[in-house]
Amino acid sequence: MHPSYKMRYLFRLLLLGLIPLSPTWAQPVQMVDAIWTARYVVTMDPQHRVIDNGAVAILGDHIAAVGTRAEIDKAYRAKQRLERPDAILAPGLINTHTHAAMSLFRGIADDMNLQDWLQKFIFPAEAKNVDREFVRWGTRLGVLEMALSGTTTFTDMYYFEDTVAEVTKAAGLRAVLGETVIGFTAPDFKTPRETLAGTEKFLQAYANDPLIVPAVAPHSIYTVPNDILQASRALANKYQKPLVIHLSETKTENDEALQKRKMTPTQTLESLGVLTGWTIAAHGVWLNEGDLAILKHRNTGLSHNPSSNMKLASGVAPVGKILKLGIAMGLGTDGVAGSNNDHDLMEEMDLAAKLQKVSTGDPRALPAEDAFAMATITGAKALHMDKLIGSLEPNKRADMLEISLSSAHAVPIYNVYSQLVYALKSSDVTDVIVNGRPIVRDRKMLTLDSPAILLKAAEYQEKIKKSLNLK
Amino acid sequence: MHPSYKMRYLFRLLLLGLIPLSPTWAQPVQMVDAIWTARYVVTMDPQHRVIDNGAVAILGDHIAAVGTRAEIDKAYRAKQRLERPDAILAPGLINTHTHAAMSLFRGIADDMNLQDWLQKFIFPAEAKNVDREFVRWGTRLGVLEMALSGTTTFTDMYYFEDTVAEVTKAAGLRAVLGETVIGFTAPDFKTPRETLAGTEKFLQAYANDPLIVPAVAPHSIYTVPNDILQASRALANKYQKPLVIHLSETKTENDEALQKRKMTPTQTLESLGVLTGWTIAAHGVWLNEGDLAILKHRNTGLSHNPSSNMKLASGVAPVGKILKLGIAMGLGTDGVAGSNNDHDLMEEMDLAAKLQKVSTGDPRALPAEDAFAMATITGAKALHMDKLIGSLEPNKRADMLEISLSSAHAVPIYNVYSQLVYALKSSDVTDVIVNGRPIVRDRKMLTLDSPAILLKAAEYQEKIKKSLNLK
Repeated sequence: MHPSYKMRYLFRLLLLGLIPLSPTWAQPVQMVDAIWTARYVVTMDPQHRVIDNGAVAILGDHIAAVGTRAEIDKAYRAKQRLERPDAILAPGLINTHTHAAMSLFRGIADDMNLQDWLQKFIFPAEAKNVDREFVRWGTRLGVLEMALSGTTTFTDMYYFEDTVAEVTKAAGLRAVLGETVIGFTAPDFKTPRETLAGTEKFLQAYANDPLIVPAVAPHSIYTVPNDILQASRALANKYQKPLVIHLSETKTENDEALQKRKMTPTQTLESLGVLTGWTIAAHGVWLNEGDLAILKHRNTGLSHNPSSNMKLASGVAPVGKILKLGIAMGLGTDGVAGSNNDHDLMEEMDLAAKLQKVSTGDPRALPAEDAFAMATITGAKALHMDKLIGSLEPNKRADMLEISLSSAHAVPIYNVYSQLVYALKSSDVTDVIVNGRPIVRDRKMLTLDSPAILLKAAEYQEKIKKSLNLK
Repeated sequence: MHPSYKMRYLFRLLLLGLIPLSPTWAQPVQMVDAIWTARYVVTMDPQHRVIDNGAVAILGDHIAAVGTRAEIDKAYRAKQRLERPDAILAPGLINTHTHAAMSLFRGIADDMNLQDWLQKFIFPAEAKNVDREFVRWGTRLGVLEMALSGTTTFTDMYYFEDTVAEVTKAAGLRAVLGETVIGFTAPDFKTPRETLAGTEKFLQAYANDPLIVPAVAPHSIYTVPNDILQASRALANKYQKPLVIHLSETKTENDEALQKRKMTPTQTLESLGVLTGWTIAAHGVWLNEGDLAILKHRNTGLSHNPSSNMKLASGVAPVGKILKLGIAMGLGTDGVAGSNNDHDLMEEMDLAAKLQKVSTGDPRALPAEDAFAMATITGAKALHMDKLIGSLEPNKRADMLEISLSSAHAVPIYNVYSQLVYALKSSDVTDVIVNGRPIVRDRKMLTLDSPAILLKAAEYQEKIKKSLNLK
């Protein structure tokens, strides 16, 4: 063969050989809004991949791609680039149960039994202080605290939820919001029927909101009449929205139901048809095998609130058994007026894992990876929102955290989940985005006026103390 | 009476009247090094006074005076003045049990049973990695973490304690340090007798140190022969220093003692005369009434380690019963290589209170004030050092914290103890002084090279992973 032919032949081989080496030919480079790189990307995808030297590409409100830094840099170009060699990127945390506005009652009545707490402090405090402005500022405080500690989605049950929705949207968080339906006069509605009418308007107003999922929230079986429980379910189903309720939080609640109704609280809801649809039930401390079978059958989502259950001595939810049955149970802080004193999901993860270990006598119970899942993807499943949030995966909403690894308690690191659950703290959360929008940057809230909120909290503190004659 | 007389008479009355109004005549103004004012001064003195708009006057290594800002300003003048209208001043926190150098093993083996943890990870990891340099850097990391989270005094039990003492003195913390006496070859001494000989030199070297209290630290009754336990006691008593030991941490420890010795671990120590002197015993999870009577009689100090006891599923110490008997039980973090993953006493307070509530079924169990006392004055009593530290009182050593109230989770505030235990976090600690010396200012360590320590931690991480073939 003539040398020149040989050369051309070799050159052609080289060209062919090059193609697989150069995927940019096969795969055109795409533009995204941001590429965020980090030492570890904790995806919580179905394989629970933890990507070393990973990156997340963000386009608009969603995640365009997740992979190694090399993979992402090969396929994407970004307007903004965030390099974080000493941090973790993780899905936003999901608080599946709270009463955000109660932040203004933080720690107002601790270390007392439930009845004294409710009768002598919470109910009088609410009767004397809760109005629309209280809810506006209380929710701002709660949302500020949640965002700074890494919560991107929360489930709320309180009063004036239309104001909670306004505040939450303005702050840029995601939330499932339900106006409390209760069998006595509330601060905003005189009767449960009025509340349901108000709730229907709320369901209509937020039917297709990118951040707010409106819900119907009957308080519990012991505070809401049966017909109202059923009307709540019907209303939720009419709009294909969730029903949020407290369930088997205390032994008293169970004992009373068994005595009065000859049924457990779960059996009561089942018998009334209240579980026939999208439901999120908080606490689930005193669920028995039969209850769990019903909840599994109805695909009811649960919320575990370790701080609250420990502090009020409610008991220990059978979390291991629940998760093993494939029932989605997320984590919740509950309100901070005694049930808890902060909205810190990094603490709840740690507590949940340790509480299961000591209560079962097995140090292998609820390992760190499962506890972190409860705060993210399992929580998303409990809210029936796992197609949208809970993990870092292409096309999911861009709800993401950056957690610093530069503090003394963050090193060394042998297992990322162990570090996240047992060592890292809410103060290590430096950046938070929700729906692609930055809401926290370098530990500063971008979307709320923090000084004004702290000032209002101090004003309410004095007003509330006076209202209860506290010195 | 002539008007001029009347005037002089009135003037004299006026003078007499003025005297009591001007105490500066009666009480000369004293000079101090610093006057530190704050919104709240939490003294933990015998009356547990919380002083609104309080101040602390510091002179050299001790507290000169504590009172309202007005009282202190009236009686003292200072070279340095620190005005903190939005903070709490509190006694330094006391960690009554840890193994600081193990910080380099942080979270190396979580969520497994104690035997796997010890046999497959901790013992091999120590055999392959623990030397003087490891202890130097591990202790620096642990001390850095402790100081930044408000710990001013800690009790340590590990190896190369002379190096632990060097590091601790250089960093400016206070500590009770005991070289582990154990029935097998340690990284630094071949036999327990050699360890005791080394310990005697250590006891002599630090006999009168302002910061270091040298101790004798036999590991436990199940790892140390009887004669060595007795020799340890004799050595401690010879130098009037404490004996530090693990006691009734697990049910297995108790069951084995009952089986082999027909005595509980506490009865074993009592029968050997090991409790006849200054003793600090860690854990005390499985103490029965008889054990408590012995410990009360011997004035043994105890250390409660809630994170460790929960995480390793060791059980729940009867803290309420112990404190009610007047036995001093402080708080400890234990080591961070699986028992815990951080040295955060703010978390241990919160856990201790919540764990007692849920385990006793009584939300009134271990109220916040008692939990905070465990981390301060009760901890000082457990170490037999309450004449020196544990509260903000005149003539006690100036070991003090400033805790910020300017974060979202810090407001509003209805009860200072409740806020300290249930809402405030280690990240709210901004300033720390020990023995009058500032060691942390504005969340920055002044006495250690933090970047160098974090870098070393990363190096050790890779070295340790290789040594255990971890990927």
